[in-house]
Amino acid sequence: MKIVLIGSGKVASALADLLDALGHSLVQVYSRTADHASLLANKYGAAAISSLADINKTANLYLIAVSDDAIDEVVKQLPESLKGIVIHTSGATHLSVLDKFPNGGVIYPIQTISKHTDLKDRTTPLGIEGNNEISTALLLEIGKSLSKKSFYCNSHQRLALHVAAVFANNFSNALYQVAHDILKENNLSFDLLKPLILETAHHVQNQLPKEVQTGPAKRNDQNTINRHLEFLTQKPNWTTIYQELTLLINNKDQ
Amino acid sequence: MKIVLIGSGKVASALADLLDALGHSLVQVYSRTADHASLLANKYGAAAISSLADINKTANLYLIAVSDDAIDEVVKQLPESLKGIVIHTSGATHLSVLDKFPNGGVIYPIQTISKHTDLKDRTTPLGIEGNNEISTALLLEIGKSLSKKSFYCNSHQRLALHVAAVFANNFSNALYQVAHDILKENNLSFDLLKPLILETAHHVQNQLPKEVQTGPAKRNDQNTINRHLEFLTQKPNWTTIYQELTLLINNKDQ
Repeated sequence: MKIVLIGSGKVASALADLLDALGHSLVQVYSRTADHASLLANKYGAAAISSLADINKTANLYLIAVSDDAIDEVVKQLPESLKGIVIHTSGATHLSVLDKFPNGGVIYPIQTISKHTDLKDRTTPLGIEGNNEISTALLLEIGKSLSKKSFYCNSHQRLALHVAAVFANNFSNALYQVAHDILKENNLSFDLLKPLILETAHHVQNQLPKEVQTGPAKRNDQNTINRHLEFLTQKPNWTTIYQELTLLINNKDQ
Repeated sequence: MKIVLIGSGKVASALADLLDALGHSLVQVYSRTADHASLLANKYGAAAISSLADINKTANLYLIAVSDDAIDEVVKQLPESLKGIVIHTSGATHLSVLDKFPNGGVIYPIQTISKHTDLKDRTTPLGIEGNNEISTALLLEIGKSLSKKSFYCNSHQRLALHVAAVFANNFSNALYQVAHDILKENNLSFDLLKPLILETAHHVQNQLPKEVQTGPAKRNDQNTINRHLEFLTQKPNWTTIYQELTLLINNKDQ
């Protein structure tokens, strides 16, 4: 396929790497910042553009991988007449944002993508949706080549996945940071918690989180909970989070 | 060393396995439930007891590995005259609970211990404390043989570690469960988030959580946050947690 990549960030880079490895031809890379476009385009022998007015109109796939709040602006600037499929990669953005294109769709990678992320092991689940039967069928085929775990999901399911990912990834990571800060204030290294953090993530690979839940909240061990709350006295935000999550775990047991 | 094990749960079992593998002699196993005591004792050729009145008074180490709220009762029933070191393994329990013994201390394993946990790779950090110089020195020596990552920490630091572990382990796991429930309500498999959960835990092995924080809260992407909150409308508890953790991540950026 001839592919135009719109975006030059971490998701765009990881997808470009994967598509190139699978033998697709990246013909153009767009970024508002010309240098960013060039940097990525040069890697794949593609042309760099920094204006969407210069877009190649004969590509098979237009892959919008920009930040969620930039998608609208990109869509506005793209010509309606594009015959290739125009897709975005956002979990929280409805397919309808692409309504103006005859062929639109979504490929949503369910992973936290850093500059070190390698999608080439094809284990990242990809949520796929198209705005008509042909687009959906084609995107499902493409998805199958990009990942062993691609699947159809509609926009509401994709939003559910995105919210769930925020809880499982963004919020867990924020809790790691709280743990880090507590240790730092007590002259303890964050290294001490690293095996525990890994083990916690490994536990839920084969068992439900509910089945492996432990701790004072789960045991309803009020003495320990009170000791912890006393420890957190000076930290109202951490205290609220402690209380809310303790309540959540308690309710689960009912 | 001659060791008496007080407790027969997951922590007691994992420690018994490790101590036995290192060539120590488990002479007695106590549990309120005679069957539990026998089951564990038989594995190591130890005697099983279900009354602390029968405790062997000549052991070198008495290892209390019972649930936190049972420690007081065990201590009350143990004779003051024990010459060996009496230790507990609890993160949230102050060393002073063992004040009645001439030699007391703590070995606190910083790990979520299930029946599959194997401590024999000696990578689980162990927080060590003794109630006098000799006890501390001896426990630090023992700690070194039990783990490559043993270290001295006082009772306040241990409580800090325990609170931090609750955030990093118990609460992360509770968030995984929220994610699971969101997916289930939308006919999606929890499997879809498993790679993301692993990656999130791996990211903080070499970088600070703050450095790898991503998501709408981090970007202060109010549109996406609002879409998520709308999605969570029917779930007041999840909404509060979403808002509090979003606030926490936002504040981090200031």
